Amino acid sequence: MALTILGCHSATPRLNAFPTSQYLEINNRHFLIDCGEGTQRQMRKYKVGFSKINHIFISHLHGDHFYGLVGLLATFGILNREKELHIYGPKGIKEVTLLQLKISQSHAKYTMIFHELTSKKSELIFEDDKVSVRTIPLTHRVYTNGYLFTEKEKSRKLNMLNISGYPEIDKADYLNIKAGRDVVLPSGEVVPNAALTLNPPKPLSFAFCSDTSYKPDIVPIIKNVDLLYHEATFLQDREDLAKKTRHSTTKQAAEIAKQANVKELIIGHYSGRYKDISLFKKEAQEIFENTNLAEPGKTFKV
Amino acid sequence: MALTILGCHSATPRLNAFPTSQYLEINNRHFLIDCGEGTQRQMRKYKVGFSKINHIFISHLHGDHFYGLVGLLATFGILNREKELHIYGPKGIKEVTLLQLKISQSHAKYTMIFHELTSKKSELIFEDDKVSVRTIPLTHRVYTNGYLFTEKEKSRKLNMLNISGYPEIDKADYLNIKAGRDVVLPSGEVVPNAALTLNPPKPLSFAFCSDTSYKPDIVPIIKNVDLLYHEATFLQDREDLAKKTRHSTTKQAAEIAKQANVKELIIGHYSGRYKDISLFKKEAQEIFENTNLAEPGKTFKV
Repeated sequence: MALTILGCHSATPRLNAFPTSQYLEINNRHFLIDCGEGTQRQMRKYKVGFSKINHIFISHLHGDHFYGLVGLLATFGILNREKELHIYGPKGIKEVTLLQLKISQSHAKYTMIFHELTSKKSELIFEDDKVSVRTIPLTHRVYTNGYLFTEKEKSRKLNMLNISGYPEIDKADYLNIKAGRDVVLPSGEVVPNAALTLNPPKPLSFAFCSDTSYKPDIVPIIKNVDLLYHEATFLQDREDLAKKTRHSTTKQAAEIAKQANVKELIIGHYSGRYKDISLFKKEAQEIFENTNLAEPGKTFKV
Repeated sequence: MALTILGCHSATPRLNAFPTSQYLEINNRHFLIDCGEGTQRQMRKYKVGFSKINHIFISHLHGDHFYGLVGLLATFGILNREKELHIYGPKGIKEVTLLQLKISQSHAKYTMIFHELTSKKSELIFEDDKVSVRTIPLTHRVYTNGYLFTEKEKSRKLNMLNISGYPEIDKADYLNIKAGRDVVLPSGEVVPNAALTLNPPKPLSFAFCSDTSYKPDIVPIIKNVDLLYHEATFLQDREDLAKKTRHSTTKQAAEIAKQANVKELIIGHYSGRYKDISLFKKEAQEIFENTNLAEPGKTFKV
């Protein structure tokens, strides 16, 4: 699993500040999460393959999280994309996006499938044989969801040391063995699967939470994730402003990470008022040690 | 008069290619022309004062000319702009812009005044005591206008050498003299204005023409301008593609400049297919010598 930060600043794009967007590779699936203005340029800068992305998740319809979407969709058209594209986001995203594409006469060969979200409860919105995605209802000034990406249970690993003790077992049997089946030898002897396999690696998970007030009731949803991105727009000194604008502080983000027992916390969405971003890490680490800072181009691998 | 190129490439934003946007300072007025995705970041990069801009002119509603508009308008709101802002562009620009601002809940204190254009004839769309702006009807795949910016006649210049010969003339008279009035001395003698003033500098003009097929019938509108920006998407080798996509080639842009007897031609809107942009200049100069290339950050002063 690898998460690449394309943009991690709040409000407006500035010379060295890029609005929210992240690129997640998980179990051979490729997802784009949020799409502020300039995201397509950031994707080119950090060599994100445009054609790999089949699913885009938008947390909410503030400009710094979706103004770059229409340009990216138009570019997919110019690049002659033909694969269908799924777009998940709050109700309204379809109308505003299609109106822009229509008025700019951006004709695309590919099909866009909009999945408009309205539920205030966590729901499963995507699932295939590799990954599932659930919403994480957040509290912001507008309807907002985070997203929880979880790998599916992987197949069992072959225990090659033990298997080599059975020359009768053919490579052609490996898929069945990985799927958990016992093996019947030509002699009629049954070799139990447990003797031939090891437990699969634990499925990995990533939770994306932006933007939101401090909201401890998300903790059960994101419990034990490997990687948590949680916005921290303000340092603790402006907890008042965080409350007013329905954002979080460093310590609030770290508190969520601690309560949810996550392995690693990434914070971002820094307010433009702060010049020294390192203070964000310092403050969060007072509560949750394994905190790191989102930075454009930085990749977090698990 | 100074024209700063913010972006000058066609189609999609790329790492070193920015869609069309220009910033014009003319007779102490400040205009933004076209606004592709990322324009606000380019404005910051090249230190264009956000608060100076009161008028934005959009040539047409293809994404590479207006996808950056909504983000800029939202940023004006975040910056607490209060001055009204005038936006000129094809019919439809108001609906699509206001829907985006509404859905992203971008509340602004300032008033946006949309001037939607539909005429296929050149019309006067802005005029004050310093500058007038006319449309230049172009031919593209969608309804498109160029814009002609012209300084108003300036007041006459004081001929200080001659004025100093009349000690009776007070500084308080200078405004009247610049306005062209004669002076009556205390003695009753009338000093004709021509003896006290010099002709004013010739009003300057800039014509912005993007995107368009080769369209010689714009020549009378842009005749003798000091500066002409004319798109040249293709080199002459792809005249066929220019015709098909309703763009111009280097030589067609240069031909327009020559016929219109302009002082300087700037070309841009280069297709991404060309790696060596210098070829554009070389080709255009075969027809019109004083041709220069648009480049991000480059300022043309007249």
